Amino acid sequence: MRFDAYLFDVQGTLLDFYTPVRAAVAEHLSALGRPDIDPGDLTRAWRTDYFTRVSTLDQLSGPWQKVQGQYEAGFAAVAASYGLPAPDAASATRVAASWQRLVPWPDVRDGLAAIRSGALTATLSNTDMATVIGLARRLDLRFDALFTAELFSRFKPDPQVYLGALGFLGIAPQRAALVAAHPYDLDAAAALGLGTVFVARPDEYGDPALAHSAEPGRYTQAVTGIDQIE
Amino acid sequence: MRFDAYLFDVQGTLLDFYTPVRAAVAEHLSALGRPDIDPGDLTRAWRTDYFTRVSTLDQLSGPWQKVQGQYEAGFAAVAASYGLPAPDAASATRVAASWQRLVPWPDVRDGLAAIRSGALTATLSNTDMATVIGLARRLDLRFDALFTAELFSRFKPDPQVYLGALGFLGIAPQRAALVAAHPYDLDAAAALGLGTVFVARPDEYGDPALAHSAEPGRYTQAVTGIDQIE
Repeated sequence: MRFDAYLFDVQGTLLDFYTPVRAAVAEHLSALGRPDIDPGDLTRAWRTDYFTRVSTLDQLSGPWQKVQGQYEAGFAAVAASYGLPAPDAASATRVAASWQRLVPWPDVRDGLAAIRSGALTATLSNTDMATVIGLARRLDLRFDALFTAELFSRFKPDPQVYLGALGFLGIAPQRAALVAAHPYDLDAAAALGLGTVFVARPDEYGDPALAHSAEPGRYTQAVTGIDQIE
Repeated sequence: MRFDAYLFDVQGTLLDFYTPVRAAVAEHLSALGRPDIDPGDLTRAWRTDYFTRVSTLDQLSGPWQKVQGQYEAGFAAVAASYGLPAPDAASATRVAASWQRLVPWPDVRDGLAAIRSGALTATLSNTDMATVIGLARRLDLRFDALFTAELFSRFKPDPQVYLGALGFLGIAPQRAALVAAHPYDLDAAAALGLGTVFVARPDEYGDPALAHSAEPGRYTQAVTGIDQIE
Protein backbone atom coordinates (compact mmCIF):
# COMPACT_ATOMS: atom_id res chain seq x y z
CA MET A 1 0.00 0.00 0.00
CA ARG A 2 1.19 3.50 -0.78
CA PHE A 3 -0.22 5.02 2.44
CA ASP A 4 -0.29 3.95 6.10
CA ALA A 5 -3.98 4.70 6.44
CA TYR A 6 -6.99 4.89 4.11
CA LEU A 7 -10.12 6.83 5.06
CA PHE A 8 -13.23 5.81 3.15
CA ASP A 9 -16.28 7.83 2.29
CA VAL A 10 -19.25 5.48 2.67
CA GLN A 11 -22.46 6.58 0.94
CA GLY A 12 -21.95 6.27 -2.79
CA THR A 13 -18.26 5.33 -2.54
CA LEU A 14 -18.43 1.97 -0.75
CA LEU A 15 -22.18 1.50 -0.69
CA ASP A 16 -24.91 1.86 -3.29
CA PHE A 17 -27.72 4.01 -1.90
CA TYR A 18 -29.60 4.47 -5.17
CA THR A 19 -30.91 0.91 -5.47
CA PRO A 20 -32.43 0.52 -1.97
CA VAL A 21 -33.63 4.12 -1.64
CA ARG A 22 -35.21 4.14 -5.10
CA ALA A 23 -37.01 0.88 -4.23
CA ALA A 24 -38.45 2.42 -1.05
CA VAL A 25 -39.49 5.56 -2.93
CA ALA A 26 -41.10 3.47 -5.68
CA GLU A 27 -43.09 1.57 -3.08
CA HIS A 28 -44.29 4.83 -1.53
CA LEU A 29 -45.30 6.23 -4.92
CA SER A 30 -47.07 3.02 -5.80
CA ALA A 31 -49.07 3.14 -2.55
CA LEU A 32 -50.08 6.71 -3.44
CA GLY A 33 -51.05 5.62 -6.98
CA ARG A 34 -48.59 7.99 -8.65
CA PRO A 35 -46.96 6.05 -11.53
CA ASP A 36 -46.36 9.39 -13.25
CA ILE A 37 -43.50 10.28 -10.89
CA ASP A 38 -40.11 8.70 -11.62
CA PRO A 39 -38.83 7.21 -8.33
CA GLY A 40 -35.22 7.58 -9.50
CA ASP A 41 -35.77 11.26 -10.11
CA LEU A 42 -37.29 11.74 -6.66
CA THR A 43 -34.42 9.76 -5.09
CA ARG A 44 -31.88 12.09 -6.70
CA ALA A 45 -33.82 15.16 -5.56
CA TRP A 46 -33.85 13.72 -2.03
CA ARG A 47 -30.09 13.16 -2.09
CA THR A 48 -29.61 16.75 -3.25
CA ASP A 49 -31.90 18.00 -0.49
CA TYR A 50 -29.83 16.05 2.08
CA PHE A 51 -26.66 17.50 0.69
CA THR A 52 -28.00 21.03 1.03
CA ARG A 53 -29.20 20.35 4.56
CA VAL A 54 -25.87 18.95 5.68
CA SER A 55 -23.94 21.82 4.19
CA THR A 56 -26.07 24.43 5.93
CA LEU A 57 -26.72 22.71 9.27
CA ASP A 58 -25.01 24.27 12.29
CA GLN A 59 -24.00 21.27 14.38
CA LEU A 60 -21.71 23.11 16.76
CA SER A 61 -24.44 24.78 18.81
CA GLY A 62 -26.92 22.68 20.69
CA PRO A 63 -27.34 18.92 20.71
CA TRP A 64 -26.34 16.95 17.61
CA GLN A 65 -29.11 16.61 15.06
CA LYS A 66 -29.04 13.07 13.71
CA VAL A 67 -28.61 12.81 9.95
CA GLN A 68 -31.37 10.21 9.88
CA GLY A 69 -33.75 12.92 11.10
CA GLN A 70 -32.57 15.13 8.24
CA TYR A 71 -33.53 12.41 5.79
CA GLU A 72 -37.00 12.22 7.27
CA ALA A 73 -37.49 15.98 7.22
CA GLY A 74 -36.02 16.11 3.72
CA PHE A 75 -38.38 13.46 2.44
CA ALA A 76 -41.37 15.55 3.46
CA ALA A 77 -39.89 18.60 1.74
CA VAL A 78 -39.07 16.72 -1.47
CA ALA A 79 -42.49 15.01 -1.50
CA ALA A 80 -44.11 18.45 -1.31
CA SER A 81 -41.99 19.68 -4.20
CA TYR A 82 -43.42 16.82 -6.28
CA GLY A 83 -46.97 17.77 -5.30
CA LEU A 84 -47.33 14.68 -3.11
CA PRO A 85 -49.36 14.69 0.11
CA ALA A 86 -47.33 15.31 3.27
CA PRO A 87 -46.15 11.89 4.49
CA ASP A 88 -47.19 11.02 8.02
CA ALA A 89 -44.33 10.47 10.47
CA ALA A 90 -44.48 6.68 10.17
CA SER A 91 -44.28 6.81 6.36
CA ALA A 92 -41.39 9.27 6.40
CA THR A 93 -39.54 7.07 8.89
CA ARG A 94 -40.24 3.94 6.85
CA VAL A 95 -39.04 5.39 3.56
CA ALA A 96 -36.04 7.09 5.21
CA ALA A 97 -35.01 3.80 6.82
CA SER A 98 -33.86 2.77 3.32
CA TRP A 99 -30.77 4.95 3.92
CA GLN A 100 -29.71 2.37 6.49
CA ARG A 101 -30.06 -0.55 4.07
CA LEU A 102 -27.33 0.41 1.62
CA VAL A 103 -25.52 -2.36 -0.25
CA PRO A 104 -21.79 -2.67 -1.03
CA TRP A 105 -20.62 -2.23 -4.60
CA PRO A 106 -19.30 -5.61 -5.85
CA ASP A 107 -15.59 -4.71 -5.50
CA VAL A 108 -15.83 -3.47 -1.91
CA ARG A 109 -15.62 -6.54 0.28
CA ASP A 110 -12.45 -8.03 -1.21
CA GLY A 111 -10.94 -4.63 -1.86
CA LEU A 112 -11.31 -3.48 1.75
CA ALA A 113 -9.85 -6.71 3.11
CA ALA A 114 -6.82 -6.43 0.83
CA ILE A 115 -6.12 -2.84 1.84
CA ARG A 116 -6.63 -3.63 5.52
CA SER A 117 -3.98 -6.34 5.31
CA GLY A 118 -1.41 -3.65 4.55
CA ALA A 119 -2.71 -0.42 6.05
CA LEU A 120 -5.09 1.06 8.60
CA THR A 121 -8.63 1.43 7.29
CA ALA A 122 -11.37 3.68 8.65
CA THR A 123 -14.65 5.14 7.51
CA LEU A 124 -15.02 8.92 7.26
CA SER A 125 -18.70 9.53 6.67
CA ASN A 126 -21.14 12.37 7.19
CA THR A 127 -23.76 9.82 8.20
CA ASP A 128 -24.59 9.15 11.86
CA MET A 129 -22.29 6.97 13.97
CA ALA A 130 -25.18 4.58 14.71
CA THR A 131 -25.87 4.22 10.98
CA VAL A 132 -22.25 3.48 10.07
CA ILE A 133 -21.89 1.08 13.02
CA GLY A 134 -25.09 -0.70 11.97
CA LEU A 135 -24.09 -0.89 8.29
CA ALA A 136 -20.61 -2.25 9.04
CA ARG A 137 -22.11 -4.86 11.34
CA ARG A 138 -24.96 -5.97 9.08
CA LEU A 139 -22.79 -6.01 5.96
CA ASP A 140 -19.89 -7.64 7.82
CA LEU A 141 -17.46 -5.00 6.55
CA ARG A 142 -14.40 -4.74 8.75
CA PHE A 143 -12.52 -1.50 9.39
CA ASP A 144 -9.92 -0.64 12.01
CA ALA A 145 -11.98 2.35 13.10
CA LEU A 146 -15.31 4.00 12.31
CA PHE A 147 -15.20 7.79 12.11
CA THR A 148 -18.09 10.05 11.21
CA ALA A 149 -18.90 13.75 11.20
CA GLU A 150 -20.79 13.23 14.46
CA LEU A 151 -17.50 12.70 16.34
CA PHE A 152 -16.41 16.20 15.40
CA SER A 153 -19.78 18.02 15.46
CA ARG A 154 -19.23 19.21 11.89
CA PHE A 155 -19.57 17.76 8.41
CA LYS A 156 -17.14 17.18 5.59
CA PRO A 157 -15.67 19.14 3.90
CA ASP A 158 -14.83 20.92 7.18
CA PRO A 159 -11.07 20.40 7.68
CA GLN A 160 -11.58 19.37 11.32
CA VAL A 161 -13.29 16.16 10.22
CA TYR A 162 -10.29 14.94 8.20
CA LEU A 163 -7.69 16.23 10.66
CA GLY A 164 -9.64 14.90 13.64
CA ALA A 165 -9.72 11.40 12.18
CA LEU A 166 -5.98 11.51 11.49
CA GLY A 167 -5.38 12.76 15.02
CA PHE A 168 -7.23 9.76 16.44
CA LEU A 169 -5.16 7.42 14.26
CA GLY A 170 -1.92 9.23 15.07
CA ILE A 171 -1.10 9.50 11.36
CA ALA A 172 0.25 12.54 9.50
CA PRO A 173 -1.85 13.77 6.53
CA GLN A 174 0.93 12.86 4.07
CA ARG A 175 0.77 9.22 5.19
CA ALA A 176 -2.98 8.92 4.64
CA ALA A 177 -5.38 8.95 1.71
CA LEU A 178 -9.06 9.68 1.37
CA VAL A 179 -10.99 7.31 -0.89
CA ALA A 180 -14.16 8.83 -2.33
CA ALA A 181 -16.38 9.03 -5.39
CA HIS A 182 -16.95 12.77 -4.88
CA PRO A 183 -14.55 15.51 -5.98
CA TYR A 184 -15.69 17.99 -3.28
CA ASP A 185 -14.54 15.52 -0.62
CA LEU A 186 -11.24 14.67 -2.32
CA ASP A 187 -10.43 18.31 -2.98
CA ALA A 188 -10.90 19.13 0.71
CA ALA A 189 -8.61 16.26 1.70
CA ALA A 190 -5.97 17.25 -0.87
CA ALA A 191 -5.93 20.80 0.48
CA LEU A 192 -4.89 19.35 3.85
CA GLY A 193 -2.08 17.27 2.36
CA LEU A 194 -3.78 13.88 2.24
CA GLY A 195 -3.43 11.57 -0.70
CA THR A 196 -6.60 11.12 -2.77
CA VAL A 197 -8.15 8.12 -4.46
CA PHE A 198 -11.07 8.84 -6.79
CA VAL A 199 -13.40 5.88 -7.29
CA ALA A 200 -15.66 6.02 -10.33
CA ARG A 201 -19.21 4.95 -9.45
CA PRO A 202 -21.11 5.23 -12.73
CA ASP A 203 -24.34 3.93 -11.19
CA GLU A 204 -24.28 6.12 -8.08
CA TYR A 205 -27.25 8.17 -9.30
CA GLY A 206 -28.78 5.49 -11.50
CA ASP A 207 -27.45 7.00 -14.74
CA PRO A 208 -23.78 7.12 -15.80
CA ALA A 209 -24.38 10.52 -17.38
CA LEU A 210 -24.97 11.89 -13.87
CA ALA A 211 -21.93 10.27 -12.24
CA HIS A 212 -18.94 12.26 -10.99
CA SER A 213 -15.73 12.13 -12.97
CA ALA A 214 -12.18 13.12 -12.13
CA GLU A 215 -9.93 15.36 -14.17
CA PRO A 216 -6.97 13.26 -15.32
CA GLY A 217 -4.04 13.66 -12.94
CA ARG A 218 -5.99 15.64 -10.37
CA TYR A 219 -5.85 12.88 -7.73
CA THR A 220 -3.16 10.50 -6.48
CA GLN A 221 -5.01 7.66 -8.10
CA ALA A 222 -8.27 7.15 -10.01
CA VAL A 223 -9.82 3.69 -9.92
CA THR A 224 -12.98 1.89 -10.91
CA GLY A 225 -13.15 -0.22 -7.75
CA ILE A 226 -11.75 -0.50 -4.24
CA ASP A 227 -9.92 -3.64 -5.37
CA GLN A 228 -7.95 -1.54 -7.86
CA ILE A 229 -6.26 0.63 -5.25
CA GLU A 230 -2.53 0.09 -5.16
CA MET B 1 -27.94 -11.53 25.81
CA ARG B 2 -29.64 -9.50 28.52
CA PHE B 3 -28.67 -6.11 27.02
CA ASP B 4 -28.65 -4.65 23.50
CA ALA B 5 -25.14 -3.28 23.90
CA TYR B 6 -22.07 -4.09 25.99
CA LEU B 7 -19.35 -1.52 26.63
CA PHE B 8 -16.00 -2.99 27.65
CA ASP B 9 -13.28 -1.50 29.74
CA VAL B 10 -10.00 -2.59 28.15
CA GLN B 11 -6.90 -2.32 30.36
CA GLY B 12 -7.16 -4.95 33.06
CA THR B 13 -10.65 -6.09 32.09
CA LEU B 14 -10.06 -7.53 28.60
CA LEU B 15 -6.30 -7.29 28.47
CA ASP B 16 -3.52 -8.18 30.87
CA PHE B 17 -1.16 -5.22 31.27
CA TYR B 18 0.81 -6.60 34.21
CA THR B 19 2.66 -9.31 32.32
CA PRO B 20 4.02 -7.21 29.40
CA VAL B 21 4.63 -4.04 31.43
CA ARG B 22 6.37 -5.92 34.23
CA ALA B 23 8.61 -7.59 31.64
CA ALA B 24 9.61 -4.22 30.17
CA VAL B 25 10.25 -2.80 33.63
CA ALA B 26 12.32 -5.85 34.58
CA GLU B 27 14.43 -5.40 31.46
CA HIS B 28 15.01 -1.75 32.32
CA LEU B 29 15.99 -2.61 35.91
CA SER B 30 18.27 -5.33 34.71
CA ALA B 31 20.04 -2.92 32.33
CA LEU B 32 20.53 -0.58 35.30
CA GLY B 33 21.88 -3.43 37.45
CA ARG B 34 19.17 -3.04 40.08
CA PRO B 35 18.04 -6.56 41.06
CA ASP B 36 17.03 -5.16 44.45
CA ILE B 37 13.94 -3.46 43.00
CA ASP B 38 10.87 -5.66 42.42
CA PRO B 39 9.67 -4.98 38.86
CA GLY B 40 6.11 -5.98 39.82
CA ASP B 41 6.11 -3.44 42.60
CA LEU B 42 7.34 -0.70 40.29
CA THR B 43 4.72 -1.72 37.67
CA ARG B 44 1.95 -1.32 40.24
CA ALA B 45 3.32 2.04 41.34
CA TRP B 46 3.36 3.14 37.70
CA ARG B 47 -0.24 2.07 37.22
CA THR B 48 -1.23 4.04 40.30
CA ASP B 49 0.67 7.07 39.03
CA TYR B 50 -1.19 6.83 35.70
CA PHE B 51 -4.49 6.59 37.52
CA THR B 52 -3.72 9.73 39.52
CA ARG B 53 -2.63 11.57 36.40
CA VAL B 54 -5.76 10.66 34.47
CA SER B 55 -8.04 11.63 37.33
CA THR B 56 -6.45 15.07 37.69
CA LEU B 57 -5.74 15.92 34.05
CA ASP B 58 -7.85 18.70 32.55
CA GLN B 59 -8.48 17.54 29.01
CA LEU B 60 -11.17 20.09 28.15
CA SER B 61 -8.84 23.08 27.73
CA GLY B 62 -6.16 23.01 25.09
CA PRO B 63 -5.17 20.19 22.77
CA TRP B 64 -5.67 16.60 23.91
CA GLN B 65 -2.74 15.19 25.85
CA LYS B 66 -2.18 11.60 24.74
CA VAL B 67 -2.33 9.03 27.49
CA GLN B 68 0.79 7.42 26.07
CA GLY B 69 2.64 10.63 26.92
CA GLN B 70 1.29 10.38 30.46
CA TYR B 71 2.83 6.92 30.75
CA GLU B 72 6.19 8.23 29.64
CA ALA B 73 6.09 11.16 32.06
CA GLY B 74 4.81 8.87 34.78
CA PHE B 75 7.63 6.42 34.28
CA ALA B 76 10.19 9.12 34.93
CA ALA B 77 8.36 10.16 38.10
CA VAL B 78 8.03 6.62 39.39
CA ALA B 79 11.65 5.82 38.54
CA ALA B 80 12.70 8.84 40.60
CA SER B 81 10.58 7.67 43.53
CA TYR B 82 12.57 4.40 43.46
CA GLY B 83 15.85 6.30 43.44
CA LEU B 84 16.57 5.34 39.85
CA PRO B 85 18.38 7.67 37.45
CA ALA B 86 16.10 9.76 35.25
CA PRO B 87 15.41 7.71 32.11
CA ASP B 88 16.37 9.37 28.85
CA ALA B 89 13.49 10.01 26.44
CA ALA B 90 14.26 6.94 24.34
CA SER B 91 14.25 4.65 27.39
CA ALA B 92 11.00 6.11 28.73
CA THR B 93 9.39 5.67 25.31
CA ARG B 94 10.68 2.11 25.00
CA VAL B 95 9.47 1.01 28.42
CA ALA B 96 6.15 2.87 28.04
CA ALA B 97 5.55 1.15 24.69
CA SER B 98 4.78 -1.98 26.73
CA TRP B 99 1.36 -0.42 27.45
CA GLN B 100 0.57 -0.98 23.77
CA ARG B 101 1.50 -4.67 23.88
CA LEU B 102 -1.20 -5.87 26.26
CA VAL B 103 -2.44 -9.45 25.90
CA PRO B 104 -6.02 -10.75 26.12
CA TRP B 105 -7.03 -12.81 29.14
CA PRO B 106 -7.74 -16.39 27.95
CA ASP B 107 -11.54 -16.07 28.02
CA VAL B 108 -11.72 -12.85 26.00
CA ARG B 109 -11.56 -13.90 22.36
CA ASP B 110 -14.37 -16.47 22.45
CA GLY B 111 -16.34 -14.48 24.98
CA LEU B 112 -16.36 -11.32 22.89
CA ALA B 113 -17.37 -13.20 19.75
CA ALA B 114 -20.28 -14.87 21.54
CA ILE B 115 -21.59 -11.60 22.94
CA ARG B 116 -21.18 -9.84 19.60
CA SER B 117 -23.35 -12.47 17.92
CA GLY B 118 -26.27 -11.27 20.04
CA ALA B 119 -25.58 -7.66 20.95
CA LEU B 120 -23.61 -4.56 19.99
CA THR B 121 -20.10 -4.53 21.44
CA ALA B 122 -17.82 -1.54 21.92
CA THR B 123 -14.76 -0.59 23.90
CA LEU B 124 -14.98 2.22 26.45
CA SER B 125 -11.41 2.90 27.50
CA ASN B 126 -9.48 5.78 28.98
CA THR B 127 -6.55 4.86 26.75
CA ASP B 128 -5.82 6.74 23.52
CA MET B 129 -7.87 6.01 20.38
CA ALA B 130 -4.69 5.07 18.49
CA THR B 131 -3.74 2.61 21.21
CA VAL B 132 -7.15 0.91 21.28
CA ILE B 133 -7.28 0.82 17.46
CA GLY B 134 -3.79 -0.69 17.37
CA LEU B 135 -4.54 -3.27 20.06
CA ALA B 136 -7.80 -4.40 18.45
CA ARG B 137 -6.03 -4.75 15.12
CA ARG B 138 -2.93 -6.56 16.35
CA LEU B 139 -4.89 -8.86 18.66
CA ASP B 140 -7.60 -9.43 16.02
CA LEU B 141 -10.34 -8.55 18.52
CA ARG B 142 -13.52 -7.48 16.81
CA PHE B 143 -15.92 -4.88 18.19
CA ASP B 144 -18.76 -3.01 16.53
CA ALA B 145 -17.25 0.29 17.65
CA LEU B 146 -14.19 1.60 19.46
CA PHE B 147 -14.89 4.38 21.96
CA THR B 148 -12.34 6.01 24.23
CA ALA B 149 -12.13 8.99 26.57
CA GLU B 150 -10.36 10.89 23.80
CA LEU B 151 -13.62 11.13 21.81
CA PHE B 152 -15.19 13.08 24.65
CA SER B 153 -12.17 15.03 25.92
CA ARG B 154 -12.70 13.64 29.40
CA PHE B 155 -11.93 10.45 31.25
CA LYS B 156 -14.08 7.87 32.99
CA PRO B 157 -15.73 8.11 35.46
CA ASP B 158 -17.04 11.38 33.92
CA PRO B 159 -20.70 10.67 33.02
CA GLN B 160 -20.23 12.21 29.56
CA VAL B 161 -17.98 9.33 28.51
CA TYR B 162 -20.63 6.67 29.19
CA LEU B 163 -23.53 8.78 27.91
CA GLY B 164 -21.57 9.90 24.86
CA ALA B 165 -20.86 6.31 23.84
CA LEU B 166 -24.52 5.38 24.25
CA GLY B 167 -25.52 8.44 22.22
CA PHE B 168 -23.30 7.30 19.35
CA LEU B 169 -24.84 3.83 19.52
CA GLY B 170 -28.37 5.21 19.81
CA ILE B 171 -29.01 2.99 22.85
CA ALA B 172 -30.72 3.97 26.11
CA PRO B 173 -28.68 3.41 29.32
CA GLN B 174 -31.14 0.75 30.53
CA ARG B 175 -30.48 -1.33 27.41
CA ALA B 176 -26.69 -1.31 27.85
CA ALA B 177 -24.17 -2.72 30.30
CA LEU B 178 -20.63 -1.80 31.22
CA VAL B 179 -18.24 -4.71 31.62
CA ALA B 180 -15.26 -3.93 33.86
CA ALA B 181 -12.93 -5.31 36.50
CA HIS B 182 -12.99 -2.03 38.45
CA PRO B 183 -15.72 -0.99 40.90
CA TYR B 184 -15.15 2.78 40.35
CA ASP B 185 -16.05 2.32 36.68
CA LEU B 186 -19.06 0.10 37.32
CA ASP B 187 -20.40 2.38 40.05
CA ALA B 188 -20.26 5.36 37.69
CA ALA B 189 -22.13 3.40 35.01
CA ALA B 190 -24.73 2.16 37.49
CA ALA B 191 -25.41 5.72 38.63
CA LEU B 192 -26.41 6.52 35.04
CA GLY B 193 -28.76 3.56 34.76
CA LEU B 194 -26.54 1.15 32.83
CA GLY B 195 -26.36 -2.51 33.71
CA THR B 196 -23.05 -3.63 35.20
CA VAL B 197 -20.95 -6.75 34.77
CA PHE B 198 -18.05 -7.16 37.19
CA VAL B 199 -15.27 -9.37 35.88
CA ALA B 200 -12.90 -10.79 38.46
CA ARG B 201 -9.26 -10.52 37.32
CA PRO B 202 -7.24 -12.04 40.16
CA ASP B 203 -3.96 -11.57 38.31
CA GLU B 204 -4.52 -7.98 37.25
CA TYR B 205 -1.84 -6.67 39.62
CA GLY B 206 0.20 -9.87 39.76
CA ASP B 207 -1.18 -10.91 43.15
CA PRO B 208 -4.75 -12.07 43.87
CA ALA B 209 -4.61 -10.31 47.24
CA LEU B 210 -4.43 -6.99 45.36
CA ALA B 211 -7.27 -7.73 42.93
CA HIS B 212 -10.60 -5.89 43.02
CA SER B 213 -13.63 -7.71 44.31
CA ALA B 214 -17.34 -6.99 44.08
CA GLU B 215 -19.80 -6.90 46.94
CA PRO B 216 -22.32 -9.70 46.39
CA GLY B 217 -25.42 -8.37 44.61
CA ARG B 218 -23.95 -4.96 43.92
CA TYR B 219 -23.79 -5.46 40.14
CA THR B 220 -26.13 -6.95 37.56
CA GLN B 221 -23.76 -9.85 37.16
CA ALA B 222 -20.37 -10.90 38.53
CA VAL B 223 -18.31 -13.26 36.38
CA THR B 224 -14.86 -14.77 36.22
CA GLY B 225 -14.52 -14.41 32.45
CA ILE B 226 -16.06 -12.67 29.45
CA ASP B 227 -17.30 -16.06 28.28
CA GLN B 228 -19.44 -16.32 31.44
CA ILE B 229 -21.59 -13.29 30.64
CA GLU B 230 -25.21 -14.24 30.05
